[in-house]
Amino acid sequence: MRSATIINGWDIGGVNIKAVRVEWHGNRARVIKAVSIPFEIWHNPSELADQLKIAGQNLTFKTEEPHGVTITAELSDAFRIKREGIHFILSALQKAFVYSPVYIFNLEGGFYNFLEADEKPLMCAATNWLASARYIANIHNNCILIDVGSTTTDIIPIKEGKVICHERTDTGRLINNELVYSGVLRTNPNAIVHTVPLRDKECPFAAEYFTTMADVYLILGDISADTYSCPTADKRQKTVRDARARLARLICADTEILTTDEIDSMAQYLSQKQTEQISEAILNVLATAAFSKIIPVVVTGTGAFLAERAARAIGIQDVIHWESKDDHNCLPAFSVASLLNEHIGKL
Amino acid sequence: MRSATIINGWDIGGVNIKAVRVEWHGNRARVIKAVSIPFEIWHNPSELADQLKIAGQNLTFKTEEPHGVTITAELSDAFRIKREGIHFILSALQKAFVYSPVYIFNLEGGFYNFLEADEKPLMCAATNWLASARYIANIHNNCILIDVGSTTTDIIPIKEGKVICHERTDTGRLINNELVYSGVLRTNPNAIVHTVPLRDKECPFAAEYFTTMADVYLILGDISADTYSCPTADKRQKTVRDARARLARLICADTEILTTDEIDSMAQYLSQKQTEQISEAILNVLATAAFSKIIPVVVTGTGAFLAERAARAIGIQDVIHWESKDDHNCLPAFSVASLLNEHIGKL
Repeated sequence: MRSATIINGWDIGGVNIKAVRVEWHGNRARVIKAVSIPFEIWHNPSELADQLKIAGQNLTFKTEEPHGVTITAELSDAFRIKREGIHFILSALQKAFVYSPVYIFNLEGGFYNFLEADEKPLMCAATNWLASARYIANIHNNCILIDVGSTTTDIIPIKEGKVICHERTDTGRLINNELVYSGVLRTNPNAIVHTVPLRDKECPFAAEYFTTMADVYLILGDISADTYSCPTADKRQKTVRDARARLARLICADTEILTTDEIDSMAQYLSQKQTEQISEAILNVLATAAFSKIIPVVVTGTGAFLAERAARAIGIQDVIHWESKDDHNCLPAFSVASLLNEHIGKL
Repeated sequence: MRSATIINGWDIGGVNIKAVRVEWHGNRARVIKAVSIPFEIWHNPSELADQLKIAGQNLTFKTEEPHGVTITAELSDAFRIKREGIHFILSALQKAFVYSPVYIFNLEGGFYNFLEADEKPLMCAATNWLASARYIANIHNNCILIDVGSTTTDIIPIKEGKVICHERTDTGRLINNELVYSGVLRTNPNAIVHTVPLRDKECPFAAEYFTTMADVYLILGDISADTYSCPTADKRQKTVRDARARLARLICADTEILTTDEIDSMAQYLSQKQTEQISEAILNVLATAAFSKIIPVVVTGTGAFLAERAARAIGIQDVIHWESKDDHNCLPAFSVASLLNEHIGKL
C-alpha cells in the first residue's frame, strides 16, 4: 500500500499547455500547483520542449514523479499530418523530462510508454476529452459532461460509469456533435453565424479575424480580463472599450458609426446564437445516447457558464458545476493525473 | 486640348496595394505599367509609406503626373476607427508622393485634395467599388457589375449610366448584399458554410484559420499558384498536395485519414456553396434595383470565373468579361485613373 503519491498531469494543446501537480492520499486529491501557459504552437513549434521545461519548473515536480500526458496539439498546422505532430510532441516531451517516467494517455483509456506511443501515434491524438470523461465517469455514473473551453466544447455521454461515444477521433466526434468547435474565447463569430440584426435588417459579417467570442463575453460581463487568456484580434487591450471597437469591425463599422447599445446588442445576439449552437449539440448527443432516465449535466471549463445556459435553455434542470477549485480549471490535466494514479496503483 | 495625358491610379487596400500608370490619347487608354504588391497593413502599418514609394518606383511615374487614389485599408484593425485609418493613409500618401498632385476619390464620385480629404475622412473610406462602378457605367449603361476579388465581392447595379446603390458605406452595402465579404483567395470556408457532407453524414468544421478558398480553387484547377497571391494558412507551399492537407484539417482530419477523392469532394462542395452565396446576393441586388428589362452582368476580378458561374446558375445568359488585359486585373486602380483623366479634362 502506498501512503501518498504525487503525480503530474499534462494537457498539451495547440494554444495552451496546462499542467497540475497532484498529491493523493488514497482517493483524496490535493492540487499542489497548477500551471497554464498560453503557447500557440504554430508560431514556433521548435520552442515546445523549452515551454514544457518552463512549465515543469513552475510545477516544481521532482524527477522521480510520474507524468501523465494528454495531447491535442497534433492538429496544429505546424504539422503536415497528425502522425508527424504526435512524433514531434513525444520527442519534445522526451527532451523536457529526460529522467522522469512519462505515461502517454491513449484512446483506449490506457497509457503507453514512449516506445508504444511512437508505434501507435494516432492512438495518442486528441485524448484530453477522454481523460476528463473517464475521470468524471468514476464520480457521476450517468451524466453528460460538458467542457466548454477557449476554443472547443466537449459533450460526452457517460452511462453506467462508461464513456459511450461511438467515435473517438476528432472528425468522428465532430460528426456526432460530441466535439463542437466553438469556445468562449478564441472562436470567431463567423464560425457560429453569418449575420446579426441591425436597425431592423440583417447585416452580414466581414469574413476576417477582427474579433472573437472573448470580446463578446467581456462586453457582457461574463468573463474578466484575467480570464481572457488568448491574444486580442487587434493586439489592443482586453478592455470593454477596445472589445467594442473590435466587435463593431465585424460588420465593417466602428465606434463612431455604431452606438454602444448597438454593439452590446450584437454581443447579446452572438452569445445567444452560441448558446443555441451548444444546446442543439447537447440535444443530439442526448438523442444518440438514449438514456433511459433523466440524467444531470456536469459542466466545466472556462465556459462552464455557457454550458449551464445551453443546458437550461433546453429544459435540463440538474446542472452540476465541476468545482474548478479541484482541478484549477484544467480538468483534462487533473484527470489524466488521477487516471495515472489509479493505473500505477494497479501495476 | 491635351494630346496625351499620363495618370497613375491607386487602389490602397488592407491586403494589397495595386497601381496602374495609364496613358490616354483622347478616350483611348494604354496601361504603361501595372503593379500589385501584397501588403497586409495590420502587420506593420508604419511601412505603408515605404511600400507606396516602392510601388511608385515600380510604376516609373514622373513627378508631375497626377495620382488618383481609392482607399479601403482604413477598415484594418491597425486603426481604432476608420477616421484614424484614413488620416494615417493620407499622411503616408503625402510622405510617399511629396511633389506630385494627388487626388483622393470620394463617395460622391468626385475628388478631394489632401486638405479636403483630411476634413471629410469618412467620405474617402472604402471607395474602390465606386470608382469601378462609375467607370463601367460609362461603357455599359445598364448592367450589374460583379467584381470578385481575393477577399470580397462587389455587386453593383448600374441603371441608365448611373450607379444606383442606396447606401455607400461598407456596413450599408453589406446589408444590401452589394458588398459580399467573400472572395476566391483569402476567405475562410467557415465564413461561407459550417459543415460538409462526409461519408453520408454532415461534418462540422474546425473553427480555425486552417485553410482558405484559394486552396479550394487551386485543388479544382480554377486558379494557378501564380494567382494564389495571399499567404497560405500554414505557410507551406501553393501546391495541390499541400492545399489538400490544409483542406483536410478543416474537419480535423489529414491526408492519411481522408482519401484524395474525399478532399476533392469537399473542395467541390465549398465552391458550390460559395457560388450559391454570390448567386443569392445577385438575386437580391436585382430585386432591389428593379430593372425594367433584362440586363447583362459584367464580371471582373481574380474571381471573375466565380462571378460568371454564380450569374449563370440563376439563369443570366448575358455575361460580359471585363477584359483583364485592359486594367491588368485591377479595375479600381484603372478606373480611378480614368475618372481622374475626365476630371482633369474638365478643370
